[in-house]
This record gives sequence, structure tokens and C-alpha cells, in this order.
Amino acid sequence: MKKVAIIMGSDSDWAMVKAAAKQLGDWDVPFEAHIMSAHRTPQAAAAFAKNARDEGFGVIIAAAGMAAHLAGVLAGNTTLPVIGLPLKGGAMDGMDALLATVQMPSGVPVATVALNGAKNAAILACQILALSDETLEKRLEQAKEEMACAIGEKDAALQQELDQ
Amino acid sequence: MKKVAIIMGSDSDWAMVKAAAKQLGDWDVPFEAHIMSAHRTPQAAAAFAKNARDEGFGVIIAAAGMAAHLAGVLAGNTTLPVIGLPLKGGAMDGMDALLATVQMPSGVPVATVALNGAKNAAILACQILALSDETLEKRLEQAKEEMACAIGEKDAALQQELDQ
Amino acid sequence: MKKVAIIMGSDSDWAMVKAAAKQLGDWDVPFEAHIMSAHRTPQAAAAFAKNARDEGFGVIIAAAGMAAHLAGVLAGNTTLPVIGLPLKGGAMDGMDALLATVQMPSGVPVATVALNGAKNAAILACQILALSDETLEKRLEQAKEEMACAIGEKDAALQQELDQ
Amino acid sequence: MKKVAIIMGSDSDWAMVKAAAKQLGDWDVPFEAHIMSAHRTPQAAAAFAKNARDEGFGVIIAAAGMAAHLAGVLAGNTTLPVIGLPLKGGAMDGMDALLATVQMPSGVPVATVALNGAKNAAILACQILALSDETLEKRLEQAKEEMACAIGEKDAALQQELDQ
Amino acid sequence: MKKVAIIMGSDSDWAMVKAAAKQLGDWDVPFEAHIMSAHRTPQAAAAFAKNARDEGFGVIIAAAGMAAHLAGVLAGNTTLPVIGLPLKGGAMDGMDALLATVQMPSGVPVATVALNGAKNAAILACQILALSDETLEKRLEQAKEEMACAIGEKDAALQQELDQ
Amino acid sequence: MKKVAIIMGSDSDWAMVKAAAKQLGDWDVPFEAHIMSAHRTPQAAAAFAKNARDEGFGVIIAAAGMAAHLAGVLAGNTTLPVIGLPLKGGAMDGMDALLATVQMPSGVPVATVALNGAKNAAILACQILALSDETLEKRLEQAKEEMACAIGEKDAALQQELDQ
Amino acid sequence: MKKVAIIMGSDSDWAMVKAAAKQLGDWDVPFEAHIMSAHRTPQAAAAFAKNARDEGFGVIIAAAGMAAHLAGVLAGNTTLPVIGLPLKGGAMDGMDALLATVQMPSGVPVATVALNGAKNAAILACQILALSDETLEKRLEQAKEEMACAIGEKDAALQQELDQ
Amino acid sequence: MKKVAIIMGSDSDWAMVKAAAKQLGDWDVPFEAHIMSAHRTPQAAAAFAKNARDEGFGVIIAAAGMAAHLAGVLAGNTTLPVIGLPLKGGAMDGMDALLATVQMPSGVPVATVALNGAKNAAILACQILALSDETLEKRLEQAKEEMACAIGEKDAALQQELDQ
Repeated sequence: MKKVAIIMGSDSDWAMVKAAAKQLGDWDVPFEAHIMSAHRTPQAAAAFAKNARDEGFGVIIAAAGMAAHLAGVLAGNTTLPVIGLPLKGGAMDGMDALLATVQMPSGVPVATVALNGAKNAAILACQILALSDETLEKRLEQAKEEMACAIGEKDAALQQELDQ
Repeated sequence: MKKVAIIMGSDSDWAMVKAAAKQLGDWDVPFEAHIMSAHRTPQAAAAFAKNARDEGFGVIIAAAGMAAHLAGVLAGNTTLPVIGLPLKGGAMDGMDALLATVQMPSGVPVATVALNGAKNAAILACQILALSDETLEKRLEQAKEEMACAIGEKDAALQQELDQ
Repeated sequence: MKKVAIIMGSDSDWAMVKAAAKQLGDWDVPFEAHIMSAHRTPQAAAAFAKNARDEGFGVIIAAAGMAAHLAGVLAGNTTLPVIGLPLKGGAMDGMDALLATVQMPSGVPVATVALNGAKNAAILACQILALSDETLEKRLEQAKEEMACAIGEKDAALQQELDQ
Repeated sequence: MKKVAIIMGSDSDWAMVKAAAKQLGDWDVPFEAHIMSAHRTPQAAAAFAKNARDEGFGVIIAAAGMAAHLAGVLAGNTTLPVIGLPLKGGAMDGMDALLATVQMPSGVPVATVALNGAKNAAILACQILALSDETLEKRLEQAKEEMACAIGEKDAALQQELDQ
Repeated sequence: MKKVAIIMGSDSDWAMVKAAAKQLGDWDVPFEAHIMSAHRTPQAAAAFAKNARDEGFGVIIAAAGMAAHLAGVLAGNTTLPVIGLPLKGGAMDGMDALLATVQMPSGVPVATVALNGAKNAAILACQILALSDETLEKRLEQAKEEMACAIGEKDAALQQELDQ
Repeated sequence: MKKVAIIMGSDSDWAMVKAAAKQLGDWDVPFEAHIMSAHRTPQAAAAFAKNARDEGFGVIIAAAGMAAHLAGVLAGNTTLPVIGLPLKGGAMDGMDALLATVQMPSGVPVATVALNGAKNAAILACQILALSDETLEKRLEQAKEEMACAIGEKDAALQQELDQ
Repeated sequence: MKKVAIIMGSDSDWAMVKAAAKQLGDWDVPFEAHIMSAHRTPQAAAAFAKNARDEGFGVIIAAAGMAAHLAGVLAGNTTLPVIGLPLKGGAMDGMDALLATVQMPSGVPVATVALNGAKNAAILACQILALSDETLEKRLEQAKEEMACAIGEKDAALQQELDQ
Repeated sequence: MKKVAIIMGSDSDWAMVKAAAKQLGDWDVPFEAHIMSAHRTPQAAAAFAKNARDEGFGVIIAAAGMAAHLAGVLAGNTTLPVIGLPLKGGAMDGMDALLATVQMPSGVPVATVALNGAKNAAILACQILALSDETLEKRLEQAKEEMACAIGEKDAALQQELDQ
């Protein structure tokens, strides 16, 4: 299976982003995680994106906050699908990261997920890879069913609480 | 190759959304376009999403404005990657559609592109399908080069204008 | 009297939403509370809404945060009045939930109340049911008077504080 | 059947609001429309709301823009359900009217619909009145089916366009 | 001298609003503070505004949060200048209160100060009353000078800190 | 009677601001209008504010768009009440001007009216001056009554339209 | 004198950006204008920034709309001051471009000017270059005086209009 | 070398702003820090800006929150480059300070950095001064390399963490 790259702009993002790594690990999807910055290590970021397909990656997840340029910069250097994960930062409510990630110009899309939606970024990467991997597709279907079951169990627990 | 589904919530969206269809057509990617609504034809929408994989679809593009629930509702009924295309509507500046599309809860991602970014939705769909289609990958690479060339030509034209 | 349904997208919403249940209980209005998700249990949600009128419900309160599709999805499957209760979530200031709840397309309204306005959702449900229930109408009138009296008492307490 | 009151803050709102009147008329729901202002004719507005139930009204639709206080002021003077219809005005994108309508304090709800959502305000009023009027309920169900059919016809037309 | 009225929509506002009372007290400006609500005690609020001029008031300060209608409702019932003091509430960042206070329709102005700007509301009231009260004008001039001096002293302290 | 000063940051503002001048003229309130800029003629603006009381002004209306500093800068140089009139400019929806006008720091209030609310700025100035001018107070009362009558007449016209 | 580089992301930006070129030309400041994109020609953009100082540039103006990454990407590749000029685009009110330009992470600043503030970008570039160019400094001082004079003349014209 | 002036509107800003002073000190760039207010000490602020060039300053950093007029007011009184540092305040999410700083009218630019971006304001000042100071330019280049190295080291640490 192709690998997923998780790229984040700062090591302080890892606390939030590691939920993506955990999800990929839980589903046995190979991944690498790296700290690279569109502004602080622009060459490394560009080089990584350029070589990503040849290195065996199928999807890139890019997590960044504030003026979140990382996903866009990576997308400018590859034709692999790039998933943008905007992070809520310190001084604004995350609107800056969301808009800087999603509002890409024509020709260079970024597949943006919710603010701090690290787990969803991983699931989206899996949905993409599952198009040519039946085992992963089965896991996704199973996870969807488990999710529904979990809601059902929580509803049952609520009924018990209400009955008391 | 797997097909792309373009689903829109209203026929009035077609004027904006057809740029996605044109891009797919230009690159010989098979697609279907349908009008279905999360609110007006909820069963049809749910059924379509449930059967999409079996019907040969690999990616779903969902375009909607205002309280844009369409992409999320489709994503709730399939494990295929769903691309959300928020549309700028009449009474707000599109912020409603963007947030309603991208801010999905954990477990059900939507790959959101820019407001009115129909062409980018199509390119993202192609990037996803190209993971298992070398011809399409070549087209994407070629398009990226042509895009860079076009910028170069426009810069050359600007230099001429400035020299006069 | 017809019942009120309180539907929430996640069990974590219950801490906020239970104020609606308490208000209905205080006024002896029959209700059920359930956890159902527009994205995680879409069939259950659609089925509930479809059958709600036959099951004796008169009003549905739907509480959700982020890309809050729940109220809209229920409203797409019933002609009962649906009250949308947008919840303030983690990463945005609730603007996402508010817009995703209120900006419904023509034909499928959602009666939206304030962010986290669980008690008001319950009162609005009662105002609707009171149109054909004189006892409940009397309680509403009485509550309105008590609310005015409470303000008067608080003003009197303030005058005492100021006089000291 | 109880009547619906359509109250608007200014005669210039009528161009937008009359879609509500038309919808009510189409479904044979009795209504009155009046121009009253929370700020310019506060007594008239308060008196109308106080007497509305006795005058045979079952629901009040209140349409206003900018600092849209009308719905809230009417709701403060009645226990009838009040539907707030925020209107997009000149200098802001309607966010002022939306927030001023929906963010009501505890105890006095306003059932807010989308910006400029006049038709939806009328449909919501009908959904409320239909709880005790089977004929109206039937019309609502029928309208829901027609709406679904219309989408289906538009999809069929799109297929024809695509086939050419 | 004419009195200042400080009206607040809820007793919970007093913690924030009392800074206005303190400023008025410090400058020997007579005032009354009352809890009245545009929605919960609409008649009391309207009656207060109607009689305010005859009762010896010269300015009304109205403090409220969320859909802050209080200032506008009072302004609709008097020709006295009404100062709107928007309060930051629980679920939004105060934008709701600010817009609901300031965006008044033509004919009924509200003199809006900053979010939670209780002291500034009091100073503005004093500036208005000082137009016909030389002693108060002198105090305002003196306060302006003291404010400048305080900045100067703080700058001097900063220089000391920097020199160390 | 004291005069009203209408200060605007640019001559292009006059098209919007002249409604304030017209209102003052209609009510025989003496005024001067000047173009002065917080950024382009800072000395002139500061000097004007410093001398305004001695020159016989009682209120200053300051109109500006974008980073609207004019009202704040004038308020920093006088203890007269300063009314801020934020103007909707080219590139933003006026939010910049509104926030830059109203969010003044403690000690230096600006009495802010609605975006483009030129007429309301004039009425507020008159309400302030009317505290010591009975004739003007009478005009304000009369205008309030006429405003209510106009609403009544418009409602009557609407009834005629509806009866046809 | 060092040159100014004006870089824009798309040829469609030129209509707005050329005001910067005109200002530089009027003041005899040497400049080059180029079309380069952070996403479409990332290598060219990075290379330009890397070599800019050696090529004789002293300041870079970067104009872009939507997810405006251009200024940040250039700033990541040079230690020259980079002026960010956010452009108002089609689907949002320019808030996306503003936040994507200004909210840069620690270590890589972008000197951001107002939305569509092309002339101000040029003036800021001149202010920077004037630190080591007395002739340019004199022009800036002169322009400041002319700007003040122009305001004075417009005020005089307004007085004439008012006197008539 | 020319000096940098750090001006802040309130002593409470120092906790945030001192990061700028530290950065300048670390790189041996001479600076002064002062507390001056556009509203509380307008003359001192204007005088400082007018004399800044003659006093040996080359750049002014102006830090302020809320209706942040300080940078604009200083820029109105000098042709030196003025860096605006918007500060996140109490009642809004800093949007007020950002817009009031950046949205300057044509003719008077302010070089705005990110909310609370004190360090970036200092770096930008150094980038400007480095145009005529080779030693400082070398430090900037060195810092850029160190920043890239730091990212590399953090990535290496992450790899170790992932390998365990």
C-alpha cells in the first residue's frame, strides 16, 4: 500500500496531529510524520513534495496554524492529493488557518478538513487509499458500523439515565 | 477507471458547477452529474451514496450553498472520499456554506475545496483517481507544467507592456 | 398532548441539552430524548423523523455543533416543526453551528434558537404545543409573569445594595 | 384555523416579505400583514403582540433588518410562537440582523429562519398550525412530495443536457 | 444636574456595569441603576423610558448582551440620548451584542460604546451633561490631564526597568 | 445654541455624510462641516478638537471608513462628546470602520452609530443639545410622532394593497 | 538605489497592482514587476526570492488574493523585507487574503498593508528605501505636505458649496 | 545604526511587547521603548513621531489593542516606516486591533504584522535596517539558517519518538 505523509509546520502541532498518526497505525496504514515548514524550511518542504510520489507516498496530510501555507505549498510541488488540516492557534479562533488552507486558487486544490480534525484527515487519507485496497475498504466499512453501534449504545445508556 | 459523481443540491448550481464537469471531460475522466438534495430528496441522496461504490464511482463531488449539508449527508452514507464544494449564495458571503461543509464531526470527513472552486474539485478528484491510473497521473503532471508555462508567458507579456 | 423529541448528535451534548429536558419535565410536557447523528446514524435519524408524527410527536428539537446538519436532515424527513439548537463546540465560537442550522434552503425551514439556548428550545416547543393546549398556555403565561416578577425582585435587591 | 400575523419593520421590507404572504395565500392559511416598528411604533407593536392570541392569531412572523429587534420585542409581549425573519440590509451582509434575531436571552425564544427566508417563515408557520389542522398537514406533505418531484424533473433535464 | 439612568437587562450584568456607577459616583453625578429587560419586563422598560425626562434624567445608559435590544427599545420610547453598552456574553465573542446595539435604523440612534466599556459609557454620559455644567466639564478636563500624567509616569517606570 | 461639527476624513465621504448636514439644517441646528484627516492632516484635526469647545461647538460628528481613526483622534483632544460615524468602504463590508470606531480604550469614549448612519448621527447630536434647548426637544418629540404616523400611513397603504 | 520587486500571483491582479508601479515610477524608484505564483511556479518564486538581494532588490511587494501564500513563501526565501498586499477576490470579502498574508508564524514576518492597498505598498517600500536615500526622503516629505494641502483645498471647496 | 522605537499604548502591553525588545537586544540593535497613547497622550505621540527621524530612529514599532489607532497616528506624523503590532485584547478576538491597524487609507501605510507578533515586528525592523547594515544582514541570514536547523532537529527528535 502507498504510504501517508503527515507533515506539520511546528513540533508544537504534534500534540494535536498525533491523533492522525494513531488512526493510521490502528488501521495498519504505513505512514511517516515529519516537521517541515513552508516558511522556515521551504526547500525541504518543496523537495519532499516533489519526491513524495517516487518515495511511495499516496497522500500527504499537511497540518498548520495561523497563515497556514504548508498544505498549499506542498500541493504546488506535487500532483498527489494533499489534505489540509488547519489548526486553531493562539490569537485567532482558527479562522485564519481555515481560510489560508481552503481558499486555494484554481489549479492547485487542497482537500481541507475541519479545524483540529486530525482524525478525520487520517480517515480521508484512508478513504483515498482504499480505492485500490480492499482490506482497507473493509476496515472503513467496519469502522462506520462500529461508529453507528457506539451511538446506539450511548442512546441506550441515555434511556437508562432518563428512566431512573 | 472509476467514475466521478457530481451531485448538486439545486439546478441553479449547475452554472457554477459545470466547470467541474468540463475539467473531467477534458481529461477523459468518466463522470455523472445529478441534482439531489439533502433536504428535498433525502432518500435519493442517501441511496445514491450507499450504492455509489457498487455503481463504479470512486469519488463524489457534492456542491451546495447556504447550510450546505449535502456533502456531509453523502459522506454519512458511504466510505468513498467525498469532496465538498461550498457555493456562495445570495444572502451571505459564502461563509455559511464553507463552515457547513468543512466543519464535519470526527469520523465523517469531507474534503473541502475553496468557495465556488468547481475546477479544483474536479482536479482533486483526478488526483485521487490518478493514484491507480498512470495515464491520468501523466495528465496531471502535464497540466501542472502547462500552468507554470502559462504564468511564464503572462509574465513575458507583462514585461513587454512595461517596456513600452 | 403531543410529545416533544429531543435529538442530539452526540452524548457529549447532553450536558448542555438536558436543560431542555428539565424545562419540559417541569411543565409536565411529555418528551423523549435520543442520541442520533446525521452522519453516523443517518438511517436511524431519517427513520425517526419519518415516523415522528405517527409516533405521537408534535415538535422535534435537534441539537448539534460544528457543521450542525442534524436539524436540517430531520426537517428534510418530516413536516413537523423542527427546532434547531446550535451548540458551541471546541474549535470555533459556534458560528459554524449557528449558520449550518439556520441557513436552510427554501422549502425546508428549521426554527433556530440561540447558541446553547436549550431552555429556549424547550419553551418554543411548548409555545407551539400550547396552541392546542390551554393548560400549557396558562403555564406559559404564568412563567412570563414570574420572569417579570423575578426581574422586579432583583431590581429591588439592587436598590438595597445601592442604598447601603 | 388560527391566523398568521406577518409584521415587518418598514414598508421597504415588503418586497422581500411578500413571498411569505404568497405562500400562506396559496395554502389558504388566513393571515394579516402589518407594518410596525419596535423602535418607531413601540406601543403599537407591544399592543399587537399582547392582543394577538385573543385576536385569533396562532403564529407571528416578524421581519426586520440591521439591529433587528422586532421579533424579540413581540416575543416579549406574547406567549405565541414568534418566527424571526432576519433581512439583509444595506451596509452589512445580514449578520447583524441574524444575530440580533436569534441570540435571544433565556425565557424568550424567537424561532429564527434563514436570512431573507420569507417563504420558509411561512412554511414554518404552517407546520406549527398543521399540528391541529389535518388539511394543512396534508398540503405540507403534498408540497414535500412535489418538491422532491421537481428535483427529480430537474435532474432528468440535466441528464438530457449532458447527453447532447 | 440631570441624573443618569443605568439600566441593565439582567442582575448578572451588574458585575460588569458597576464600573459605570463607580465613575459617576466618583464625579458626583447623580444616577440610578435599575434592572429592566426589553424582553422580560417590556412594559416597565417602555414606561421608564417614556417618563425618564420628566423624572429628571438626562442620559440613559443601557447595558445588555447577546441580542441586545435594551438600548434600542429604550431609545424607541424617549428622545433622551441613550448610550448602548454591549456586553460580552457566554456563547459568542460579543459580536452579537455589538451589532444588535449599534446597527439601529434611521430615526432612532443609540450611542454605542465598546464591548464591556462600562467606564466609557459613564464618561460619555458625563461629557453630555457637562455641556451645561461647568463643574463637571472641569472634572473631565482634569481627568484627561491625569490620564496623560499616568501614562507619563508609567513610561518613566518603564525607562527605569529598561535601564537596569 | 451650541454648534455641531461634522468632520469627515475625505471629500468622497460627503455624499454619504451630507444627510447629517441636511437633518441639522432642517431642524435649524447650527453646524459646520469640514474635511480633516487623522492621518493626512493630523495637526489640523488635533487643533480643531482642542479648540472646538471654545469655538462654540457642543458636539462633534466624525465620519470615516476603513481604519477609521478620526473619531478616536478627535476624542483624544477634547472632552466634548464625539459621535463616531463609521462608513462602509470599498474592500471590506464596513466591519473595519465599525470596530475601529467603537472599540475605544477606557477613558476616551466615542458614541458610535450604525454604519453609514449619517442621519442618526445628526439626531443623536440633537438629542444631546436638546438637553438644554426646549425648542429642539419639542422638535425631537414632534419628529418621533411624525415617524410613528408615517409608519401608520404606510401600514394603511399596505392594507389597501392587500384588500385589492 | 536598490530596486523594488512587485510580484503578483496572477496577471488578473495587474489591474489592481499597477497603482504600485505607477507610484514608484512617479517617484523615480527603480522597480521590476513579475507574475509568479507560490502554487503554480513555486520554484521560480523561491529562486527569485533567494536571488533578490544579489540582483539589487531592496524590498519585495507580493500581491495575492484568496489563500494568499505568495508573500509568505517569498519571505521564507529571503531576509529582505517583504510587503504583503492582500487582494480582494471573488468569493469572500478579502478576509481570506488578509489573514493568509498577515498571520505569519514567528521568525518570518510579512509587512502587510490594507486590502487592495497597492499605492500604500509602494509608499511603504519607498519609506524603507528612503532610510538611505535623502532624495527619496525629501519626496516623501513633500508628498505628505501635498496630501495635507489637498485636504485643505477640498475643505475650502466644501465651504464654498455650503455657503451657496 | 539607526534606532528602533517601540511604542505601546498601555503599560499592560509590555508583557507581550517585550519579546520585540528582547529580539532587538539579542541582535545588538539599538532601541527605545515608550508608553504613549494615541488617545491619552496624543500630543506626546505626535511630537515623538515628528521628531523621530531627527532623533536617530529608523523604524517605529507601534503596539496597541482594540481600536488600535496608535500605529496610524504615528504614521500620520512621520515618513519613517511604521510597523503596526496589533494586540489581542479582552473582549474581541483581536480582529478589532488587526483591522484598525492594517486598513489604513491611501497615502499613510502601516506595515502590519500578525496579532501578538512582537518578535516578528522586531525581525521586520531589522530587515529594514539591514538594507544598509551588512553585519545585521549577516545576523538575519544566520538566524534563518538556525531556524531551519532547529526544525531539522525537531524532526529528528520526532523520528526517534516514532521509532520507539
